Amino acid sequence: MTTEQLEQTPRTRLRRSHKRGDFDRETINSILDATSLCHVGYLVDGKPAVTPTIHWREGDHIYWHGSSASRALKNSNGHDVCLTVSLLDGMVLARSAMHHSANYRSVMIYGHGTKVTDVDEKKEKLRTFLEQLFPGRWDMLRPMTDQELKATMILGMPIEEASAKVRTGGPIDDEEDYELPIWAGVLPLVHAMKRPEADPRNLKGLAIPDHVFSFARP
Amino acid sequence: MTTEQLEQTPRTRLRRSHKRGDFDRETINSILDATSLCHVGYLVDGKPAVTPTIHWREGDHIYWHGSSASRALKNSNGHDVCLTVSLLDGMVLARSAMHHSANYRSVMIYGHGTKVTDVDEKKEKLRTFLEQLFPGRWDMLRPMTDQELKATMILGMPIEEASAKVRTGGPIDDEEDYELPIWAGVLPLVHAMKRPEADPRNLKGLAIPDHVFSFARP
Ligand SMILES: Cc1cc2nc3c(=O)[nH]c(=O)nc-3n(C[C@H](O)[C@H](O)[C@H](O)COP(=O)(O)OP(=O)(O)OC[C@H]3O[C@@H](n4cnc5c(N)ncnc54)[C@H](O)[C@@H]3O)c2cc1C
Ligand SMILES: Cc1cc2nc3c(=O)[nH]c(=O)nc-3n(C[C@H](O)[C@H](O)[C@H](O)COP(=O)(O)OP(=O)(O)OC[C@H]3O[C@@H](n4cnc5c(N)ncnc54)[C@H](O)[C@@H]3O)c2cc1C
Ligand code: HEM
Ligand code: HEM
Repeated sequence: MTTEQLEQTPRTRLRRSHKRGDFDRETINSILDATSLCHVGYLVDGKPAVTPTIHWREGDHIYWHGSSASRALKNSNGHDVCLTVSLLDGMVLARSAMHHSANYRSVMIYGHGTKVTDVDEKKEKLRTFLEQLFPGRWDMLRPMTDQELKATMILGMPIEEASAKVRTGGPIDDEEDYELPIWAGVLPLVHAMKRPEADPRNLKGLAIPDHVFSFARP
Repeated sequence: MTTEQLEQTPRTRLRRSHKRGDFDRETINSILDATSLCHVGYLVDGKPAVTPTIHWREGDHIYWHGSSASRALKNSNGHDVCLTVSLLDGMVLARSAMHHSANYRSVMIYGHGTKVTDVDEKKEKLRTFLEQLFPGRWDMLRPMTDQELKATMILGMPIEEASAKVRTGGPIDDEEDYELPIWAGVLPLVHAMKRPEADPRNLKGLAIPDHVFSFARP
């Protein structure tokens, strides 16, 4: 377990609730790995746009993908982006309106999106992406074609100028409000998986692969 | 049930998978109401930043709040923002790598954040925010103070230049791949609530209010 601390920059230094901030790489990585969904902010004609996208992490880099023709990707390639990952872990009910809050984990990463251009590297990255989600699946699939690789753009970014922010625990009320007969507490929220739905066109008698049951990375 | 269609603008016209696009106000509203978590994109020194935030909707407007000193809010007030709400509803497993996908519902709203300045309107908005989440709770709470109101900024934006995009259903494979003995299907994902956790400092014998059990808007 490393305890590498990312360097704080003028952009990532927390001004609000800075005690909730965290620059530990392990903490940042664990949040990035806890969900596949991120939101990428980029510019279109100088104005902000935020696109929901699936991401994956390899070491100290974060990746996302889509169509080679995607505006979101083209406008992120070589340009400033902010990639944010967040999990809403609970609603926090306090004794006054203002002290209501949410429990959460989030990471913001600033940087430039950079296109992966080497064809073999692209293929390897997509393999890693899929294998992280569904171990063992890649080799079961119909092999990828050159045309499919060409149609796909992968962007990557170092996890360097980044910060985590985390809230846990119950409400923090004004001291005198603890005497009031008001129910306070936390409503914990989780991501849950429901029963897998087989494609009606699956061949008869196919076993469900283990990676479907062990999937744990919504 | 209205069937009002929002006008498509050069910004909101979908280029990719445009059949998944939807400009029906009811559809957009239902996605906005399905989760409290949004991601707001705004500029800091001309560069994009994306901040996770709780939102609420009142009619044709969307609102969010935080500290009057928040950089995210100050940089969104009177400036261009993109507010995105998205739900990851499932992972879609196909017979080839590329046709893997995700089921989702999402909305992107473009506009200018505008601060709510009138004190009574602010109070009313915060009341609506809390009452939508936890009906009946506002009147149980220690009343809000003027100082709390002053410390809080609320931003609003019309839901006018907006689009929804939705994917549902199983994988869409290449026709010849349906003959392959590969398990394909969907892993549905949901938000779930776990058992409420009472604050250890609650007064003894307090009943849990109904709005805790009926909470259905993660
Ligand atoms: C699920 C969820 C819901 C939230 N709901 C609300 C809400 O309703 N109202 C509200 O005011 N705040 C909310 N927050 C916190 C919000 O994301 C911001 O942290 C907060 O608004 C302060 O913003 P700021 O621009 O003033 O922060 P600043 O402290 O000025 O930001 C400076 C730097 O700190 C870092 N930073 C700030 N916030 C985060 C973060 N969330 N994650 C990682 N790094 C961060 C970034 O590097 C940023 O550039 C929520 C967070 C999460 C994850
Ligand atoms: C949970 C989730 C995961 C996703 N994962 C991926 C992924 O891994 N790879 C990928 O390529 N795409 C993914 N998408 C789709 C992605 O959000 C974009 O729709 C897609 O990348 C096309 O982007 P674009 O900029 O080329 O779209 P364009 O069609 O050029 O966008 C033009 C306009 O269409 C509207 N629009 C586009 N996308 C959306 C949207 N998602 N919601 C509402 N309005 C929209 C906006 O108004 C936008 O300004 C995901 C979506 C969701 C919700
Ligand atoms: C209705 C009255 C409310 C008022 C007056 C209010 C006010 C505020 C203020 C002033 C902040 C900024 C705190 C800071 O950054 O120092 C804040 C942050 C926040 N509020 Fe509220 N709020 C209210 C209700 C709610 C509710 C109902 C929720 C969600 C259930 C909520 C969730 C949050 C969250 C998650 C933050 C971010 C705190 C952090 O940075 O960790 N608020 N609110
Ligand atoms: C590993 C090989 C993969 C390749 C080559 C690939 C390629 C692509 C391409 C080209 C697009 C753009 C489609 C379009 O906009 O027209 C796309 C979109 C997308 N991909 Fe992938 N993908 C791969 C794996 C995955 C996986 C494993 C997932 C998630 C489980 C995924 C999720 C998505 C989603 C959600 C979209 C958006 C589709 C939409 O707009 O509705 N992809 N992918």
